[in-house]
Amino acid sequence: MEPGPSALLTDLYQLNMVQAYLESGQTGTAVFEFFVRKLPAQRAFLMAAGLEQVLDLLETLRFSPDELDWLERSGRFGAGLIDYLAKFRFSGEVHAMPEGTVFFANEPILRVTAPLPEAQLVETRLINVLHFQSLIASKAARMVQLAPGKLLVDFGLRRAHGSEAGPMVARASYIAGFAGSATVLAEKLFGIPAFGTMAHSFIQSFDSEAAAFEAFARARPKDLVLLIDTYDTEAAARKVVALARNLRTQGIKIRGVRIDSGDLVALSKSVRRILDDGGLAGTTIFVSGGIEEESLAAFAREGAPVDGIGIGTSLATSSDVPALDCAYKLQEYAGLPRRKRSAGKATWPGRKQVWRRYDADGRMASDVLSIEEDVHEGEPLIRLMMQDGRRIGPCPSLQEVRGRARRELERLPRGFEVLKPRQSYPVRVAESLEKLAATVDATTK
Amino acid sequence: MEPGPSALLTDLYQLNMVQAYLESGQTGTAVFEFFVRKLPAQRAFLMAAGLEQVLDLLETLRFSPDELDWLERSGRFGAGLIDYLAKFRFSGEVHAMPEGTVFFANEPILRVTAPLPEAQLVETRLINVLHFQSLIASKAARMVQLAPGKLLVDFGLRRAHGSEAGPMVARASYIAGFAGSATVLAEKLFGIPAFGTMAHSFIQSFDSEAAAFEAFARARPKDLVLLIDTYDTEAAARKVVALARNLRTQGIKIRGVRIDSGDLVALSKSVRRILDDGGLAGTTIFVSGGIEEESLAAFAREGAPVDGIGIGTSLATSSDVPALDCAYKLQEYAGLPRRKRSAGKATWPGRKQVWRRYDADGRMASDVLSIEEDVHEGEPLIRLMMQDGRRIGPCPSLQEVRGRARRELERLPRGFEVLKPRQSYPVRVAESLEKLAATVDATTK
Repeated sequence: MEPGPSALLTDLYQLNMVQAYLESGQTGTAVFEFFVRKLPAQRAFLMAAGLEQVLDLLETLRFSPDELDWLERSGRFGAGLIDYLAKFRFSGEVHAMPEGTVFFANEPILRVTAPLPEAQLVETRLINVLHFQSLIASKAARMVQLAPGKLLVDFGLRRAHGSEAGPMVARASYIAGFAGSATVLAEKLFGIPAFGTMAHSFIQSFDSEAAAFEAFARARPKDLVLLIDTYDTEAAARKVVALARNLRTQGIKIRGVRIDSGDLVALSKSVRRILDDGGLAGTTIFVSGGIEEESLAAFAREGAPVDGIGIGTSLATSSDVPALDCAYKLQEYAGLPRRKRSAGKATWPGRKQVWRRYDADGRMASDVLSIEEDVHEGEPLIRLMMQDGRRIGPCPSLQEVRGRARRELERLPRGFEVLKPRQSYPVRVAESLEKLAATVDATTK
Repeated sequence: MEPGPSALLTDLYQLNMVQAYLESGQTGTAVFEFFVRKLPAQRAFLMAAGLEQVLDLLETLRFSPDELDWLERSGRFGAGLIDYLAKFRFSGEVHAMPEGTVFFANEPILRVTAPLPEAQLVETRLINVLHFQSLIASKAARMVQLAPGKLLVDFGLRRAHGSEAGPMVARASYIAGFAGSATVLAEKLFGIPAFGTMAHSFIQSFDSEAAAFEAFARARPKDLVLLIDTYDTEAAARKVVALARNLRTQGIKIRGVRIDSGDLVALSKSVRRILDDGGLAGTTIFVSGGIEEESLAAFAREGAPVDGIGIGTSLATSSDVPALDCAYKLQEYAGLPRRKRSAGKATWPGRKQVWRRYDADGRMASDVLSIEEDVHEGEPLIRLMMQDGRRIGPCPSLQEVRGRARRELERLPRGFEVLKPRQSYPVRVAESLEKLAATVDATTK
């Protein structure tokens, strides 16, 4: 694990709040839950990711002497707050859905139970981590569904929003079923297989494309993939066929070609023919460049002979839905359930559980959102993950999380594997929770 | 400056390329330019930002012993590459438009001139930095134009994509004219004023809203802003009026109220009336919650009495355009201009300059994109920034960059200050450049 970012990566109002809580004695036990208010129109389900990084954050969040000194010198805070931050250790509990779990609107995927100032102080970064990875895992899961049997690779680091986003895109998309990432650091940090081919600049730096191919083949004879769209894709495919004959005598095999522009369906077909006719039936076709879900659906519909697909911008920014309408809200304080009633932003009070029922085929049938003490039919999805500020056990490996995600996608209801599912998934609010909300409303002034 | 991220924050193919360049002797001088291929439909202009962080990157990029060891153990690379990376220091030149400059499609905002392996190796992170800050500055500039005289504050850290995106959103939006950010770290790193009010959870943790307001006022009597939308916004505004009378005797003044949900135009008007009628004409109204450009246009059109506006998701993710179609392309190698001719991705070859003409009112009139040696009428926008791997002088202060951005927005052509400008800005390609492209095409096989 790389060292976490500065403890000052937070909103100023969190520090204001903590100071006010301390001064007004509001230090009782608080329960916050993180959930998505509403599914975007483009998503029929979401996938939870980022829990491991949230637990890392809670275990390691500390204010350094330099940060404390800077806060003190800002003149905004009293000595009480600085002292509190100097000693800060998260001491609470975390309940959550395991990473890779499919979830829906209003279902908490994480609950923090801790003294109010602690639960408040971690809000900003907790949302920053959990929102982003869940956003990307949800986007990637859709892409995996639309490209069955294809090798999908994250190419998103360039357009990812800043340094941390890159490896986090690699992680979240790998969880959802991508084969790997172009981001080298993601292999070092998380063991995610790194993929890479060649750049247009390599081709351009030679006076002829054929000379560039040959030089690259000699320099990197293993796992050789040639980029063929710099000038004229079909002409380049014919150069690949010619080169393959020369290379064969030297024991070098062209594993694949990559096409990064143009009509990828048409070009993959014509290039496949050129390669097959040239005796290169075993040479794979990898495509990239502006790939969206619609492109993946088109590849499947039109039988484009592509073996692998590199996806950058649309994955790394979740371009059709670059943010989820999510929140981390106080649901209970000092033993009493609470709720916010703001227009369009009302929340369900109290500690909650999500119960998932499966049909006879083992597919998800419906969920119930209940208060924690209820027992309903099905599988309870929210589990204890951290107690007294420490994980209750090691996090599952990324392979295990990936396995869970794969099973989750297999268990989605029929009809959820297409680009625009017609139905929405049924989530029922338990009677006990409806009653609790009414009681809370009646007692809040 | 915080330490930069790992040198392994790059695409695997950059390392493959460098190895192949070294082995095939392609180590001559390369010229790469960074530009946006096409303006998104939602943007009539863009604003350059991120140059300072690019120069930081180029001055400080080093491979640590741990990273070199990891690369070696991966088994992917020869000793020659590892040795090259161990000694890596960027030694090239950078020409660029200053931060805060308005730019258009196909205009390079940055040029790197360096030995080919060096210029290639820095590509991924250079794009990652320059794309994101320019994306956000461009989004923020639109918002600033649509809210003349309003205090705009970045509230985006929670939905920003990862840890680095938060402070970079603060920086890019501050350049474009935002007043500050909620992100504490942005004040520490860049001196950007931090803003903060209070949270719904504070209100909810008390049994009554009035008690919460009073406790908060006592804990933070300076710069007091009360959040009034937790339950019923107008009722809360009346509680504020009542509280103000009590607080006045203690010398505490309520500086403002914040509304975070509901119909912000209607609520700001009714709350303004309640405050004015209650003798609080000096108490400001701050709004937040799902603000988009359309909201800002509506505030102006309908005369909403809002003084300040907090903008989160739409700013931090540039939600309508979460990525620009940009590229960092080889334009010259070993003294010869180069270009890529891929469908939809063709580039203009050679080292280029952008010349900007102004009309009699001092407003931007038109640009010419030319080869570097040409001289055209107007102001040349691209300047030398780094030589032999070192800045030629200190970067301008953030205040200076902000001043430039403000003047740039003032000098945009008339009609560019609205939500959807009708015209597009004229950028002409000089004859010399057209000729060069034709010559390059005729000589590339």
